[in-house]
Amino acid sequence: MTTFLGTGAMGTALAATLLDAGLPAVVWNRDPRRAQRLAGRGALVADTVEKAVAGDGPVIVCLFDHRSVHDVLDPVVGALAGRTVINLTTTTPAESRELAGWAAGHGIAYLDGAILAVPDMIGGPGSVIFYSGSAAVFAGHRAVLDRWGESTFFGADAGLAPVYDMAMLTGMYTMIAGFLHGAAMLAAEGVPAAEFARWQAPFLAAMTGSLAGYAAVVDAGDYAGEGQSLRFTDAALAALLRASTGQGVSTEVLQPVHDLVRRQIAAGHGNLDTARIFEELRSRPRS
Amino acid sequence: MTTFLGTGAMGTALAATLLDAGLPAVVWNRDPRRAQRLAGRGALVADTVEKAVAGDGPVIVCLFDHRSVHDVLDPVVGALAGRTVINLTTTTPAESRELAGWAAGHGIAYLDGAILAVPDMIGGPGSVIFYSGSAAVFAGHRAVLDRWGESTFFGADAGLAPVYDMAMLTGMYTMIAGFLHGAAMLAAEGVPAAEFARWQAPFLAAMTGSLAGYAAVVDAGDYAGEGQSLRFTDAALAALLRASTGQGVSTEVLQPVHDLVRRQIAAGHGNLDTARIFEELRSRPRS
Repeated sequence: MTTFLGTGAMGTALAATLLDAGLPAVVWNRDPRRAQRLAGRGALVADTVEKAVAGDGPVIVCLFDHRSVHDVLDPVVGALAGRTVINLTTTTPAESRELAGWAAGHGIAYLDGAILAVPDMIGGPGSVIFYSGSAAVFAGHRAVLDRWGESTFFGADAGLAPVYDMAMLTGMYTMIAGFLHGAAMLAAEGVPAAEFARWQAPFLAAMTGSLAGYAAVVDAGDYAGEGQSLRFTDAALAALLRASTGQGVSTEVLQPVHDLVRRQIAAGHGNLDTARIFEELRSRPRS
Repeated sequence: MTTFLGTGAMGTALAATLLDAGLPAVVWNRDPRRAQRLAGRGALVADTVEKAVAGDGPVIVCLFDHRSVHDVLDPVVGALAGRTVINLTTTTPAESRELAGWAAGHGIAYLDGAILAVPDMIGGPGSVIFYSGSAAVFAGHRAVLDRWGESTFFGADAGLAPVYDMAMLTGMYTMIAGFLHGAAMLAAEGVPAAEFARWQAPFLAAMTGSLAGYAAVVDAGDYAGEGQSLRFTDAALAALLRASTGQGVSTEVLQPVHDLVRRQIAAGHGNLDTARIFEELRSRPRS
């Protein structure tokens, strides 16, 4: 019997994948109405965390954030000793390392997971989940993990899966924000967002093919090549910003990228490759 | 004989595609060394714009920006009357409309083009070019245009192709900036950017599949559905920002997305769909 703590959209998708395969599960959620929905798919619904972790199977944790993980697990830590916790809550690398240390201190086998998929994708093609922490837990529960998506283990450092995850999600959220900015530009011309998405999705998918080229420049540390220069990118972004303003669209998502480029040009790097943004992000933390 | 004004990376790719197919071309560039490189591929190299436009074929313009188009074309406007200009320079919708009006005023048939590809992609799969302006020019030169990429005509309003183009490029530049941010996060753990790109590229390509869903929410104008809430996105972005700072990576690319989300939560929209960022970008221009 697998325990699921947290049945938000993602926790529900994880539990439902097992339930739909005929595997037993007990679920708990802070708001019991969300857990109750899984009863119809075969789940036992526990009204307390204590009851949910009363069995001996793995405990799958998918909560709101790092704090909620402690809020939910700390009171039942006695029942978890000798057990397995697989934490799929979105946490920072430092938070995952803290949880791994906490688990080790209480005799809990801990695997940290980072889901690179939206709930609808769980159990289907394209769902990818990164893991790090206990190699024994990863190997021992691989059959279950593989039901949710393509599973990859990055090593014993519990923080590694989250670093990869967060690096990946940064690209995703900026892409989505950029898409919504573009949709707003076209909305000013009366073009529906669905019409834009029909063009934007395959274009961006094709453009992901250019990321390896940017990476090669970054890894070589040589920005003097033939790639798109910062000066060219400056002009392109300036045009996008002018056009956005002209259509009454906020430039707040794109402006910082332009600022990054202009700062480098001011420092004399205008003829260097646009991939040099990497150096600027790495070397000048501004929070 | 086709004329090419501007042989930067993109102009060179456009001219080379025709030359490699055995079609004649005359090329001009402000820095003649860049034009000279095409001589070896069969181009006639003109040392003045006057000579470059002395024939009667279409004039393909691919220059630095809107101002350079006028700088180059204005002095030879007399020679262009009755001719065809296809402008592939990156310009804003307003700038393209201005050029269309200028062309009409001088008896020039004008087609505006917006290239959704990097130079390496021209003439190959995945190269997409949007056009608007003269339908007769589009139809009459379709055979040439199709050599460069998949050609689509958006209508007589010359500004339409650039609006689509710029909306598309906004997604691309934000995606690239997000990728470089992620690469900087992993660099702090000693992971090469190429290793990251190997994961990031297919993940982002898969995630473009979610854009149609965001678009459907935007077009319905109903953000009360089951999608990822602004409150959830707030927590996810806060974790990404904490993790970035923890790894010494600048948050300047991602912070504005978080600010957009938090502003909406402060206005009482926390339970609404993250696609609502669209409304915020559209309704509150901040430049």
